[in-house]
Amino acid sequence: MQVPEVLSRYREAVDAGLKSALSEGDHPIFDMQRYHMGWLDKDFLPMSSNAGKAVRPTLCLFACEAVGGEWSHALPAAVSIELLHNFSLVHDDIQDGDTERRHRQTVWYLWGYSHGLNTGTAMHIVANQALPRLGATALSPELVLEVSRILTQASMEMIEGQALDVRFERTPRVSSNDYLVMIEKKTGALLEASLRIGATIGTGDTTLVKEMSAFGHSIGRLFQVRDDILGVWGKAEDTGKPAASDLHRRKKSLPVVHALENAGINASGKKFADIYRTKDALSGTDIEALLMIMDEFGTFSFCHGLAQREAEKALQTLRQSPLSPWAKQQGGDLVEFLLEREY
Amino acid sequence: MQVPEVLSRYREAVDAGLKSALSEGDHPIFDMQRYHMGWLDKDFLPMSSNAGKAVRPTLCLFACEAVGGEWSHALPAAVSIELLHNFSLVHDDIQDGDTERRHRQTVWYLWGYSHGLNTGTAMHIVANQALPRLGATALSPELVLEVSRILTQASMEMIEGQALDVRFERTPRVSSNDYLVMIEKKTGALLEASLRIGATIGTGDTTLVKEMSAFGHSIGRLFQVRDDILGVWGKAEDTGKPAASDLHRRKKSLPVVHALENAGINASGKKFADIYRTKDALSGTDIEALLMIMDEFGTFSFCHGLAQREAEKALQTLRQSPLSPWAKQQGGDLVEFLLEREY
Repeated sequence: MQVPEVLSRYREAVDAGLKSALSEGDHPIFDMQRYHMGWLDKDFLPMSSNAGKAVRPTLCLFACEAVGGEWSHALPAAVSIELLHNFSLVHDDIQDGDTERRHRQTVWYLWGYSHGLNTGTAMHIVANQALPRLGATALSPELVLEVSRILTQASMEMIEGQALDVRFERTPRVSSNDYLVMIEKKTGALLEASLRIGATIGTGDTTLVKEMSAFGHSIGRLFQVRDDILGVWGKAEDTGKPAASDLHRRKKSLPVVHALENAGINASGKKFADIYRTKDALSGTDIEALLMIMDEFGTFSFCHGLAQREAEKALQTLRQSPLSPWAKQQGGDLVEFLLEREY
Repeated sequence: MQVPEVLSRYREAVDAGLKSALSEGDHPIFDMQRYHMGWLDKDFLPMSSNAGKAVRPTLCLFACEAVGGEWSHALPAAVSIELLHNFSLVHDDIQDGDTERRHRQTVWYLWGYSHGLNTGTAMHIVANQALPRLGATALSPELVLEVSRILTQASMEMIEGQALDVRFERTPRVSSNDYLVMIEKKTGALLEASLRIGATIGTGDTTLVKEMSAFGHSIGRLFQVRDDILGVWGKAEDTGKPAASDLHRRKKSLPVVHALENAGINASGKKFADIYRTKDALSGTDIEALLMIMDEFGTFSFCHGLAQREAEKALQTLRQSPLSPWAKQQGGDLVEFLLEREY
């Protein structure tokens, strides 16, 4: 599997932009943010660690360039989007009780709930502060406000999705449709907004912006379904998480929702539901049993089929668009990568 | 004690603006916000309860009118400020473990930490969404962005102050100076921003805006010191909180910081520190002992003296300003009220 060129194309600029956004502030709440970003260790000494793929800022800058804009004009927006995403991760870790992320202890786990909560909120505000810098990149104040409006709306959908997710954890029956609505808000909204914002900055052609948003909509679903696949069938050395980590954490991700939807049809389904309901830690044998039942139900094919359909939609949107051959090639490579990625 | 006219002058418009900002959204996360605001009961049925004094939006609209502006132009900003304040209350209740606010159960206590966290964050985003409506009140996009910048900066100071407060809870020695720096961020920044934003919307005269900000700075300190006085010596029937509630909660508010600063000087001081350090619930006798020792140390006079000095500064700023007699009168009445208020 080849990593598409576009994922490294803007990387240096994004990293520099993120560091600049978090460069001010001598308060410990800034050091905890820098820790989360992987730039400081837990004693607040400099370090460098794998900071993730930066998919969202890449999508934003790619969209800007693809529609014929100067991608550097969109950099403050790309930075703001990545900070928003990371603020949500800091708060998600609290809500999920996760003690590790990207092989490192989480902020709340190291410094407690209150500091975790405040660190996430501070990053939310830093994200808001980053956006007006768009004004320094030759954008009109009207356009800055329009971008701000799109991003605020996407943030709200993200939180609505997060709140739905919390409710689903306590709901015995969640259909795969309910699940897809939730995840479209929780994860999809910001991914779609990334492309929409980049396009909005890059062109005044509203048809083109709509096409990029539609592309973003498919990318959002594709991204999350693949994430859920990796949470069950991903390899630890690739994902940085234990194998079948979503099963161990008893998450109701798409594969599990699919299996539970089939719980009524036979004894295997009942067994799946019973194992998933136990309060104890799951043994290796339990996990194996869950995986075998999902095999029986064709859960992997169901999930991968969904991802493939979204990938196909995304590619079709690209093909029908008036984008340049370069943009179509880069966008297509990105779709292929998101469908097949192992990490 | 007379309630100044200015506190009711804009009340209806502020309430309507708040309800409008939270009118959309059928997701339960909006109902939990409406519950916090006192418009819905815990079954999400309509009710009306005392929603607080709405000091911040009042200050914002007063500043706009006082400098000669049309106060209705500042209404979206006033609404945004009040929502920001309330988002911080929802999160503070989680961090302080408070189960009641304004005689009602807190959001996290009713629906759990996760929903409390998400409800606060959603209100933070609603506050961000309210601000661009300034554009509909004849303000230029540049001015909307400037107001947004002031408010985002104040939000950041508020969170920095909150994070300092969390640290102080675990710090054995906090000086009254450290405390005042913390509270200036946690509470003062948003109060000062309220006046600065109102003035910025109302006039292009930067000297006048600076004077209003200075007035706001004193108001911020005055407000918080009085709050701390009421937390120890306020009457339950006025404040809506149990008598000496800050002592029961072992908060390190200004009176306590003052008493602990004197802990080294004699046996009374040592006794105060010992009682405050115990993990058990404090008895009526304990509270009485704490109050007597504060009496011995002149703690009330120290705190009230501080509040008086800030009130005097605020009044002096008003007197020296070129504001109209009406504005000076209303502002002066407000200062007197904030110094003497019992609730």
